[in-house]
Amino acid sequence: MALSESTPLVPSTTSSSTEEVLDFAKASTKTLTLLLGSIQVFVLVFFLFGTTYSPEDYSPSEYQVFRDIMVMLLLGFGYLMTFLKKYGLGAVGLTMMLTVIAILLNVPVELFCRFLFGEKEDTSFPLPLKVPTFVDGEFSAATLLISYGAVIGRASPVQLVVMAICQSFFYAFNKVVIVLGFLGAEDVGGSMTIHMFGAYFGLAVSKALGPPKVSSSSNAEPSQVSDVFALIGTTLLWVYWPSFVGATETGVSLNENVCVIHTVMALLGSTIASFYLSQKLGHGKLDPVHIANSTLAGGVAVGSSARLAMTPGGAFLLGMAAGVVSVYGYKYSTPKLEEKFGIYDTCGVGNLHGWPSVLGGLLSIVFVAMNSDAEFLNHEALTQCVAQFLAVLSTVAIAASTGYVTGKVMMKTVGEAPDEYDDSLWWEGEYFEAEEKKEKV
Amino acid sequence: MALSESTPLVPSTTSSSTEEVLDFAKASTKTLTLLLGSIQVFVLVFFLFGTTYSPEDYSPSEYQVFRDIMVMLLLGFGYLMTFLKKYGLGAVGLTMMLTVIAILLNVPVELFCRFLFGEKEDTSFPLPLKVPTFVDGEFSAATLLISYGAVIGRASPVQLVVMAICQSFFYAFNKVVIVLGFLGAEDVGGSMTIHMFGAYFGLAVSKALGPPKVSSSSNAEPSQVSDVFALIGTTLLWVYWPSFVGATETGVSLNENVCVIHTVMALLGSTIASFYLSQKLGHGKLDPVHIANSTLAGGVAVGSSARLAMTPGGAFLLGMAAGVVSVYGYKYSTPKLEEKFGIYDTCGVGNLHGWPSVLGGLLSIVFVAMNSDAEFLNHEALTQCVAQFLAVLSTVAIAASTGYVTGKVMMKTVGEAPDEYDDSLWWEGEYFEAEEKKEKV
Amino acid sequence: MALSESTPLVPSTTSSSTEEVLDFAKASTKTLTLLLGSIQVFVLVFFLFGTTYSPEDYSPSEYQVFRDIMVMLLLGFGYLMTFLKKYGLGAVGLTMMLTVIAILLNVPVELFCRFLFGEKEDTSFPLPLKVPTFVDGEFSAATLLISYGAVIGRASPVQLVVMAICQSFFYAFNKVVIVLGFLGAEDVGGSMTIHMFGAYFGLAVSKALGPPKVSSSSNAEPSQVSDVFALIGTTLLWVYWPSFVGATETGVSLNENVCVIHTVMALLGSTIASFYLSQKLGHGKLDPVHIANSTLAGGVAVGSSARLAMTPGGAFLLGMAAGVVSVYGYKYSTPKLEEKFGIYDTCGVGNLHGWPSVLGGLLSIVFVAMNSDAEFLNHEALTQCVAQFLAVLSTVAIAASTGYVTGKVMMKTVGEAPDEYDDSLWWEGEYFEAEEKKEKV
Repeated sequence: MALSESTPLVPSTTSSSTEEVLDFAKASTKTLTLLLGSIQVFVLVFFLFGTTYSPEDYSPSEYQVFRDIMVMLLLGFGYLMTFLKKYGLGAVGLTMMLTVIAILLNVPVELFCRFLFGEKEDTSFPLPLKVPTFVDGEFSAATLLISYGAVIGRASPVQLVVMAICQSFFYAFNKVVIVLGFLGAEDVGGSMTIHMFGAYFGLAVSKALGPPKVSSSSNAEPSQVSDVFALIGTTLLWVYWPSFVGATETGVSLNENVCVIHTVMALLGSTIASFYLSQKLGHGKLDPVHIANSTLAGGVAVGSSARLAMTPGGAFLLGMAAGVVSVYGYKYSTPKLEEKFGIYDTCGVGNLHGWPSVLGGLLSIVFVAMNSDAEFLNHEALTQCVAQFLAVLSTVAIAASTGYVTGKVMMKTVGEAPDEYDDSLWWEGEYFEAEEKKEKV
Repeated sequence: MALSESTPLVPSTTSSSTEEVLDFAKASTKTLTLLLGSIQVFVLVFFLFGTTYSPEDYSPSEYQVFRDIMVMLLLGFGYLMTFLKKYGLGAVGLTMMLTVIAILLNVPVELFCRFLFGEKEDTSFPLPLKVPTFVDGEFSAATLLISYGAVIGRASPVQLVVMAICQSFFYAFNKVVIVLGFLGAEDVGGSMTIHMFGAYFGLAVSKALGPPKVSSSSNAEPSQVSDVFALIGTTLLWVYWPSFVGATETGVSLNENVCVIHTVMALLGSTIASFYLSQKLGHGKLDPVHIANSTLAGGVAVGSSARLAMTPGGAFLLGMAAGVVSVYGYKYSTPKLEEKFGIYDTCGVGNLHGWPSVLGGLLSIVFVAMNSDAEFLNHEALTQCVAQFLAVLSTVAIAASTGYVTGKVMMKTVGEAPDEYDDSLWWEGEYFEAEEKKEKV
Repeated sequence: MALSESTPLVPSTTSSSTEEVLDFAKASTKTLTLLLGSIQVFVLVFFLFGTTYSPEDYSPSEYQVFRDIMVMLLLGFGYLMTFLKKYGLGAVGLTMMLTVIAILLNVPVELFCRFLFGEKEDTSFPLPLKVPTFVDGEFSAATLLISYGAVIGRASPVQLVVMAICQSFFYAFNKVVIVLGFLGAEDVGGSMTIHMFGAYFGLAVSKALGPPKVSSSSNAEPSQVSDVFALIGTTLLWVYWPSFVGATETGVSLNENVCVIHTVMALLGSTIASFYLSQKLGHGKLDPVHIANSTLAGGVAVGSSARLAMTPGGAFLLGMAAGVVSVYGYKYSTPKLEEKFGIYDTCGVGNLHGWPSVLGGLLSIVFVAMNSDAEFLNHEALTQCVAQFLAVLSTVAIAASTGYVTGKVMMKTVGEAPDEYDDSLWWEGEYFEAEEKKEKV
């Protein structure tokens, strides 16, 4: 401070660039205030007049599932994205914001979609609020956070809120009306409705946003500290993943049991396969990106088939395949998407959530065929297999098309930020000013 | 090392200042050894001869509640305070020390207070030790850690142990004898007995300690890394907060259910309101302080009324109000307390725990009036409303007065440290010496 | 980048040293690929053809125990070891790898050992896979991670995989065939079978590996940031430790209850004793090493006797003694082991897991004598006491001898790395190159 006072002749370029940044943040605050304010009013009215209690149905394990998944959202996804060395506040902080918006909006939106599809038993109004209602909200939030991973650092808070609003509808439509409703597909752990939808929606948004600024490329790199932060996310996601996959089966002892066993086996498979392949491709060196992400690919892939009789060995094999697909994705798919299609994927969600979910979705056809007498399936063998296949196709199609439209809408908001992958654009902090000063010197 | 050997003529001022620090730590070790030693002997004797088992009463969910709250104490509070860039060891390490002291002391002290108030059924001796006994200890620890937040970085370990000993009595007296005993107020989640008491006790201690040293002001700032560490605390507190509010209702299915739903709704409310207001006040930029703290204000405010029929929408509205009060507190209340009253509040506990708990305590009057036939209330409608009001008044009064006295006692210990907000005062580490050397150059 | 382009004449020494490192990693990748590949094939075949379901036995609390211990392994042990300022990726990342290998191998190996010892009821083939099967795997992983702590930073990934394979047999043999089988000793929380075995196995491996390179000594130090990361491990281990000790008693309400109470009391004891002694020995300053480690010693020591009627006060006293033993261990035992025996112990596992487990193992003789009528004991009073004593002796002997042999085998792999305690040896990252460049300037 003293320094800048004693040097009154700050170069005008710097001064103007600082002002620009300020102006940009200032300009966006009007829209952001309007959007966040409208969401608050809308959900307040809905919860005040559209919900009631349902106290008879409570079991403590429902709360435990809710809590476990909340760890995955706020800490798992949040810290997994802190690998960006200058965007830690954006990773964890905006994850909180998006999670809360997604949960709040999902309750009325999913109720509306159930009503649309004519599920009479689940559409009593006012809605009897239960802990599983929030768990459904968490699934919506997980999907949104996956999409966030594709564009983190490049989309502004305003754009992210727009994305949250749009996705809440498209996500619920695809899940409630198409995949589980019309098709009656099997997807207990959300390989398709959550991971696949989130990944391709996010990639389509990213396509619409266009390439990142050349100047910001060094910001997008990790530091050793930020990579250690990121592993907090990885390890927590690993640990709590079985709660996620088995969430809707809570209390259904038999299904809960196989969901847990299959998810653990799949994660063991993707973890050992990722270590195996990462050091092999790196000529003896491990890539932190693979270890932070691909180790979890088994959890993504196992979601569709987790309560089918896939056997422990089958789940392990599926997990290994998912880990392999994911590591190869980081090596080959990401560069190709950038070069050939202009699709930039900050966290590589296409490799952690995209390819492994496609693998899991397609292999669910096999597992459905092998276990076609399972009572929870909606169709007989062949029909169910076709339903699984169509669920993959429609999820990718709906996610990609609605994501692209959403991205185009996001581009209509306040103009482009002067830089990217930089917390100082959206967060106050004296350390940002100190750093800026240091860089000038 | 090699450098200092080859430069034998270290300036005498530095050498003496290092010695002073050493002497200061040395001087305090005698008192600290005496205090920690006495606590150990006292509680050892108590647990050896004053406790017995109560093995019939066990339910696994009690342990889960204990464990969840322990996450909040050791990691939640601990990491929330790591935002101080040079005081991370003090934040997490001394949190461990204070938590353990508080739990150990609370068991005999609360037993004594129950005996004082004549609750015969709960005062059998030797005390049958149960997991909920430890949960009561955790509540005491939470209160202590809130107070710690007001003075962290400025109070020495000796002073903190003095604070822990004094507060263990005053906290238990206010809770057992006054609020829940004499007044029979409703405060299931501890808005008053825990958050309000902890905040105003801490602020009063801070008043007695006086202002921080001018020289140490830059130490009190965060760095980008320390702010990302702090969000570990925020997110874990968010996730496990429903366990805290519903802790005493474990096993009472109906109450547990509404406690969980109300707490989640209140946290959703305070989070979205904090993001809304923070960017609005910051002209498009978010303040990490608001996001790390005010997002949790809903959990503070909902504590008194959590098992009353406040409706999901009511809880959401209360949470939003708490978030707003908290953000405005950081903007207006903190500077005013410093300038006008000489009260320094390192973590802003007055804004996260103080104002929101006053809001929650006062609004509990409304919710009690609306749900006056609840069987767990101790009085009829009007009396209960008055009891709620008096509980707020007496908690603030008892906390502030006993906190001030405690602060004065704390000032009687070893003289003032040469610096503040600096781990190197209380922790060994070669990196401190390396840094000191670097600063000299 | 620009810099290196404009200075084409990079000194040849640097270039060759970089190549050496690369060659070293490259050379090891062949063995690592072979080992990890073989493990994958072996366990895949085993799980495909050697396991089946056992869906009737499921209870949700089993999954919760599995999940809690997984937090301890991936985050607890993982982050506890991040105190090494340049080895955070190795700490958390290789912890993931070792945990997964240990769990996967333990299932077939322990089944084989049960078969060896003739426990007919537990050796049906194909093995009905249950969540507790994975919990047994976690115990094996905990043991491996303790051993890893002794050699972290010095053993290469290939060597660690060799260690994992060898230990999986020796650990299971000592536990299933000797301690619990032949001797019928009481060790519900694994003081002997897990902590003692892991510590002395690791120290023996370390002896075989020889002293660290002089050049790498500064890498082995912590930084302030890395010490704050390490406390994530400490606090999570503290919180979830009761789940670990009581894991095998899940569902046996009475035993579960006393396991929880005794573990909490022991941890409270070791924590307060560690703070007491650390500041006393440090003349008023706390040593982060003591606070990160010795605070947990009570949990190590209480393992053998946790379901015996040791009384809360007895558990507290045991915990205090364990904390004292551990802090003194760091002060006196570690330097002596280095100087006199050439045994280097990176994390001090001899002080956190070694001495406290010997204390706990030996004191279990007293607690068994005091509670000799407990129905779960295998022998009458005197025999059981002798069994406890022999279990300590045989565990130390088997761990030390098999560990030494394992270490010698590990030395047969690819030659010595050019440096130690440095992530850049085994991990890819642009920041490593940037740092290397900076150091040259």
